[in-house]
Amino acid sequence: MKPIKVTVWNEFRHEKINEKVKKIYPDVMHAVIANSLNKAEGIKAVTATLDQPRHGLTDKVLENTDVLIWWGHMAHNEVADEVVEKVKTKVLEGMGLIVLHSGHFSKIFRSLLGTNCSLRWREDGQKERLWNIEPAHPITEGIGEYIELPHTEMYGERFDIPTPDKLIFISWFAGGEVFRSGCTWQRGHGKIFYFRPGHETFPIFHDPQIIKVITNAVRWAKPTIMKKDSCPNSPALEKI
Amino acid sequence: MKPIKVTVWNEFRHEKINEKVKKIYPDVMHAVIANSLNKAEGIKAVTATLDQPRHGLTDKVLENTDVLIWWGHMAHNEVADEVVEKVKTKVLEGMGLIVLHSGHFSKIFRSLLGTNCSLRWREDGQKERLWNIEPAHPITEGIGEYIELPHTEMYGERFDIPTPDKLIFISWFAGGEVFRSGCTWQRGHGKIFYFRPGHETFPIFHDPQIIKVITNAVRWAKPTIMKKDSCPNSPALEKI
Amino acid sequence: MKPIKVTVWNEFRHEKINEKVKKIYPDVMHAVIANSLNKAEGIKAVTATLDQPRHGLTDKVLENTDVLIWWGHMAHNEVADEVVEKVKTKVLEGMGLIVLHSGHFSKIFRSLLGTNCSLRWREDGQKERLWNIEPAHPITEGIGEYIELPHTEMYGERFDIPTPDKLIFISWFAGGEVFRSGCTWQRGHGKIFYFRPGHETFPIFHDPQIIKVITNAVRWAKPTIMKKDSCPNSPALEKI
Amino acid sequence: MKPIKVTVWNEFRHEKINEKVKKIYPDVMHAVIANSLNKAEGIKAVTATLDQPRHGLTDKVLENTDVLIWWGHMAHNEVADEVVEKVKTKVLEGMGLIVLHSGHFSKIFRSLLGTNCSLRWREDGQKERLWNIEPAHPITEGIGEYIELPHTEMYGERFDIPTPDKLIFISWFAGGEVFRSGCTWQRGHGKIFYFRPGHETFPIFHDPQIIKVITNAVRWAKPTIMKKDSCPNSPALEKI
Repeated sequence: MKPIKVTVWNEFRHEKINEKVKKIYPDVMHAVIANSLNKAEGIKAVTATLDQPRHGLTDKVLENTDVLIWWGHMAHNEVADEVVEKVKTKVLEGMGLIVLHSGHFSKIFRSLLGTNCSLRWREDGQKERLWNIEPAHPITEGIGEYIELPHTEMYGERFDIPTPDKLIFISWFAGGEVFRSGCTWQRGHGKIFYFRPGHETFPIFHDPQIIKVITNAVRWAKPTIMKKDSCPNSPALEKI
Repeated sequence: MKPIKVTVWNEFRHEKINEKVKKIYPDVMHAVIANSLNKAEGIKAVTATLDQPRHGLTDKVLENTDVLIWWGHMAHNEVADEVVEKVKTKVLEGMGLIVLHSGHFSKIFRSLLGTNCSLRWREDGQKERLWNIEPAHPITEGIGEYIELPHTEMYGERFDIPTPDKLIFISWFAGGEVFRSGCTWQRGHGKIFYFRPGHETFPIFHDPQIIKVITNAVRWAKPTIMKKDSCPNSPALEKI
Repeated sequence: MKPIKVTVWNEFRHEKINEKVKKIYPDVMHAVIANSLNKAEGIKAVTATLDQPRHGLTDKVLENTDVLIWWGHMAHNEVADEVVEKVKTKVLEGMGLIVLHSGHFSKIFRSLLGTNCSLRWREDGQKERLWNIEPAHPITEGIGEYIELPHTEMYGERFDIPTPDKLIFISWFAGGEVFRSGCTWQRGHGKIFYFRPGHETFPIFHDPQIIKVITNAVRWAKPTIMKKDSCPNSPALEKI
Repeated sequence: MKPIKVTVWNEFRHEKINEKVKKIYPDVMHAVIANSLNKAEGIKAVTATLDQPRHGLTDKVLENTDVLIWWGHMAHNEVADEVVEKVKTKVLEGMGLIVLHSGHFSKIFRSLLGTNCSLRWREDGQKERLWNIEPAHPITEGIGEYIELPHTEMYGERFDIPTPDKLIFISWFAGGEVFRSGCTWQRGHGKIFYFRPGHETFPIFHDPQIIKVITNAVRWAKPTIMKKDSCPNSPALEKI
């Protein structure tokens, strides 16, 4: 069986300018995720970042991507509309898309969902507990009743998203909030998974359970078909 | 009770250049729809068209619109992105949106749904039968088991849309196709209804049952709240 | 406009045997709810209880019920299957059903949803905060960002229900759990709303916000049609 | 990888009493389906029928079933409630269930969906065309834009089912009707697929495309977990 080809896209700005982030992710965040995925059977992950030509997402790279993982935060607006349009087309054709944490405000996520994707937030480093609402879903394979993150940023409802096809995780926060933390949608022939955890100043992507969820999501989001859009003038099938 | 304020938007190009369309809609299509709505209790409809300044959709007009009806076909690309963005913001804040027929390819519809909204089609003037799948839905109030249109354009599956919140009508076509002809979605706080019938060269909007469905949809799509988007930094509700 | 006819059904056992419950609901729980509803415009509520003949749900009572509210806890098994079947038939024909709190384990709720409807629970009298996920839904009209209940029983996920049509409230609990506290489904032509709050040893149904939600839900669940089931042998509509 | 264990359940009455059915299925319908499945890689199918002790669905058989296929028609009422209850429990725990054709009126299907599952019908032997609405779904792998059945019984809308999680096929009938012919739901941890084709007096289960869909559905419906129901009294996770 051919490996699933993953491209881990990272804005890669915080790591350059923030000492705290550098300490948590000395190997940079996208590399940490890609390295973890490369340890999983049947997955081959590479990386791409904002400051590369075409943000590292050339036609050739997209052709060689089954599942795209997206992390962005401070520079959503610097992503070129033309690249967003290409990525969107590929998702609608069947490519999987996994959007992490602050990627909720990325152009690609908002453009596929059609809503603002806004939420309430607080950078307080308190506890989050993600309840596993769908223990039979492939994305929660090997995950218990909940995942605990001792220190994280808070995201709270109302999260402005269309009703998910499946709600997989609901988060509890020490400060009193809740959040739909793991959600799936299909758009065109592509599968989309949003996963909340992943703030740059907490070592979330070093957590084996978080990596397990992302690995599961890669397997789940793998394309079943790739199919170009068309709007055919179609001859009658019956005599009329 | 205050009337529901409806703006019927029409591209209004076919009527200017096509003699056949002029004959079917001597009073122009948007006026036919608006006049029908104005006969219904509690609805006050006005019109707007592409060639007006800002396509007739100024801030003031949008402020005074509870439900926007959209018909477009040959000039989707002439609708300014800035106007689309304003309309989208209003829908997400709570304004209702009813998209008719070839409006499936409008910028506003595609931008709210996130998909291509493509389909198969054939301009053959044959029979369509719309089956009423949800007789308890407010949009089908007063409609029987099905609606028959003796002569219409065909739209067939696969219709590239996200799974509707509710599938209201499924069409049967004499040439052998089926189509999800009446679909609802919520985006933000706004309600969206797509309704397939309405080709410019057939007198669809003179059909009392089609008008009944659109009138019902206006009542259903009326905003319950209007709420501006925000992404607040939110203090903890519990001691932490 | 004719009033909406509501029947508030209560098992009415705790109130007879538990002094604490008697103190909180000296006027009995079903009467408290019915009295509150009767103060709302356009609603006319009566009550029915388990120990009445046919549990108070005769054909005549069901004929005169637009929306049935259900509270049960310790005696779910004493509800006769024949009565459950009649109520189910009426819901599928269009009658609204509002299931409160421990009613999650009632025969009628489980039989309409098809799942076990189990959950985790703890009677600890701690704080619950119900987040309003759908501020544009008629059921949350007049409700703010959340409802706080200072002392309540805990219900936690995983709640074994089919994916709701709309998830309206998500609860946060002081002990660390979350719960889908307000959910809607359509079954047949009937609307169903499950609302979590309402434990017998806490004065939940004296809370004006809880009563507001139930009142809104009554208006939302009102039948649009009542339609008997049939499985007709149906002649062809086209020449074949 | 262990094979998927399938039990094909058939009422097996028509084949005993109807000469026409005997001619079409000399090897009996359940054996035809099971034999076809046994030719597929990684599937091991056995059969069970109504007139066996416990309808062939003993605890041991259910223990050894990953996916249950159900065909019934004239004897739904002879299926013992106790057996239905056992099958339902297993589905909620994770076992897959594929319901064929007239199985729409089986106790197990109605009990899992909660609705009447009624529809309109006509035994006229005319053409059906099943449109493939979800070409990216595993159930339609290898299936083109539609499947044609030259002679079949008609099933038409309104089909009284809860809104499917995914609508996979919509049928067109020569007589003028449409039908939601392929639908999925999740109940508990189990996956359910309803597939319309399969009348006993037409050789539907000899059609390679129909067998392909059923084979795909078996792979899709395979359990990811098996999990017994519980309703635990659950200690607090946070200090309160």
